[in-house]
Amino acid sequence: MYDAIIIGGGPAGMAAAIYLARQKLKFILLAKELGGKTLWSSDVENYLGFHLLSGVELVEKFKRHLEDYKQDFELHEGELVRGIALQAAEFAVTTDKATYETKTLLIATGQANRKLQVPGETEFYGRGVTYCATCDAPLFKDKTVHVIGGGNSAMDAALLLEKYAAQITLVAVNDELKGDARLKNRCLTSPKIKFLGGSRVAKILGQKFVDGIGLMGPDGTERKEATQGVFIEVGLKPISDFIDFVEKDKLGQIIVDKRNRTSRLGVWAAGDVTDVTEKQIAIAVGEGSKAAVDMISYLQTA
Amino acid sequence: MYDAIIIGGGPAGMAAAIYLARQKLKFILLAKELGGKTLWSSDVENYLGFHLLSGVELVEKFKRHLEDYKQDFELHEGELVRGIALQAAEFAVTTDKATYETKTLLIATGQANRKLQVPGETEFYGRGVTYCATCDAPLFKDKTVHVIGGGNSAMDAALLLEKYAAQITLVAVNDELKGDARLKNRCLTSPKIKFLGGSRVAKILGQKFVDGIGLMGPDGTERKEATQGVFIEVGLKPISDFIDFVEKDKLGQIIVDKRNRTSRLGVWAAGDVTDVTEKQIAIAVGEGSKAAVDMISYLQTA
Repeated sequence: MYDAIIIGGGPAGMAAAIYLARQKLKFILLAKELGGKTLWSSDVENYLGFHLLSGVELVEKFKRHLEDYKQDFELHEGELVRGIALQAAEFAVTTDKATYETKTLLIATGQANRKLQVPGETEFYGRGVTYCATCDAPLFKDKTVHVIGGGNSAMDAALLLEKYAAQITLVAVNDELKGDARLKNRCLTSPKIKFLGGSRVAKILGQKFVDGIGLMGPDGTERKEATQGVFIEVGLKPISDFIDFVEKDKLGQIIVDKRNRTSRLGVWAAGDVTDVTEKQIAIAVGEGSKAAVDMISYLQTA
Repeated sequence: MYDAIIIGGGPAGMAAAIYLARQKLKFILLAKELGGKTLWSSDVENYLGFHLLSGVELVEKFKRHLEDYKQDFELHEGELVRGIALQAAEFAVTTDKATYETKTLLIATGQANRKLQVPGETEFYGRGVTYCATCDAPLFKDKTVHVIGGGNSAMDAALLLEKYAAQITLVAVNDELKGDARLKNRCLTSPKIKFLGGSRVAKILGQKFVDGIGLMGPDGTERKEATQGVFIEVGLKPISDFIDFVEKDKLGQIIVDKRNRTSRLGVWAAGDVTDVTEKQIAIAVGEGSKAAVDMISYLQTA
């Protein structure tokens, strides 16, 4: 019987692990990959204490910190949760490798990319279509690309591509970009970035690789633009389908109280998978730490 | 008219400042001293991303981060709030220097040291009595000292003093130390630290400087022990007396919801001054960031 299982290895899960490890609790950190979405951030500028650095660099720092405690807990990286069963007062977590019983659970699974769900998106994935500008931007040197989305992550992607691509078109459904004022200003003044508001993607075209994109304007007419890369940044959805015994909001986000408790006793949630104000590294770290502190006091009195 | 005033320059206030600055909002960060209680932490081991470092070192990193944005806001360090007046939908903050009008307020004032309230405590303050082990431990080289308190900060103080003092007695009201298991273990196995549970301080004695301490045991009998230093670590109280128009709990902590809103529209609170689960740097940074994000969206729609 474990004291706790943390599902998810992003900032919230890693922060919680440090707190639990310091209390000598017996626990597993189950993570597909340590770092979570932070790995996909090109520039991180607002995690207090670190100036501008890349998400990959920040995750390296998080991992080195976690290593200080590696003898104090089990890290199961690459192990995937298949299901969770309720057992009297406890939980049984089944992964692709084994089943573990635990007194408490912390869900910190974060979010996955939302898809456009248009023809060509699945077909050309990895052949011009990508959801990770940080990973793939350098492959598009001197190319013409389209970034789909009008929020911070789309702007982030466009600004990252500015260093490599020849021409970037930022395609958004709304007439205006929404988010961080600095990012917005940098996008709108960049000679390489063209903003195309009020437009939807109808399809993605190509032969072996992407060679074009079908765009629908506000008047409903469709036109084709040539492109060699489509960076999809239309938002995220919480990874919460695998758990059905906690309350969620209509977006599928797990509802937490201000101590990060869910509707089910013994289950906490933290970070991007919850209905927390906004998805930010500093917030996820705070939320994961807060959940861990409350789990510790629950385990002490349980 | 300012968009926002942040009162308090600890981790919560500094984290919030970075978020507000990035949105080009017009705001003041009012801080007695940047860093807050973090300056008094000897070892910080659980702020994700940083291995062991001192509170002073961490605050230096926070300050350098804030400097990236120094042209984007007004930092008023050393300026003290005298009062806040409600004005229709806005607020007027009066300090020892001026009065500022603002649309929103973030209270991030943290906590102050709780006093023992025993004879000798005020008299010998600065002459053997201290509330800051980080600041004063090196002054007690080869001396006999008493640390009062049974929680993390008392243990932290004792372990810091271990490097300097000859003999440390940790005096607690409870029979057991309470808090971080690692700290507890290190205190209880140290040859220099003696733990004295079930005891209260009755008075602090001395002539020009502290030379003794009166301790009351569980049986009510008082005895004197010789000592050259008394480190008082009996907890903290929220700095919230100056604000009377938001709801507080019975400890004086400002009650916040999970978006860090207080009971008064236009006023947020974050960090140690609130009824947040536990007082931790990582949590304060997360809470400050969360408050700022919500303030930004409030100001956009207000």
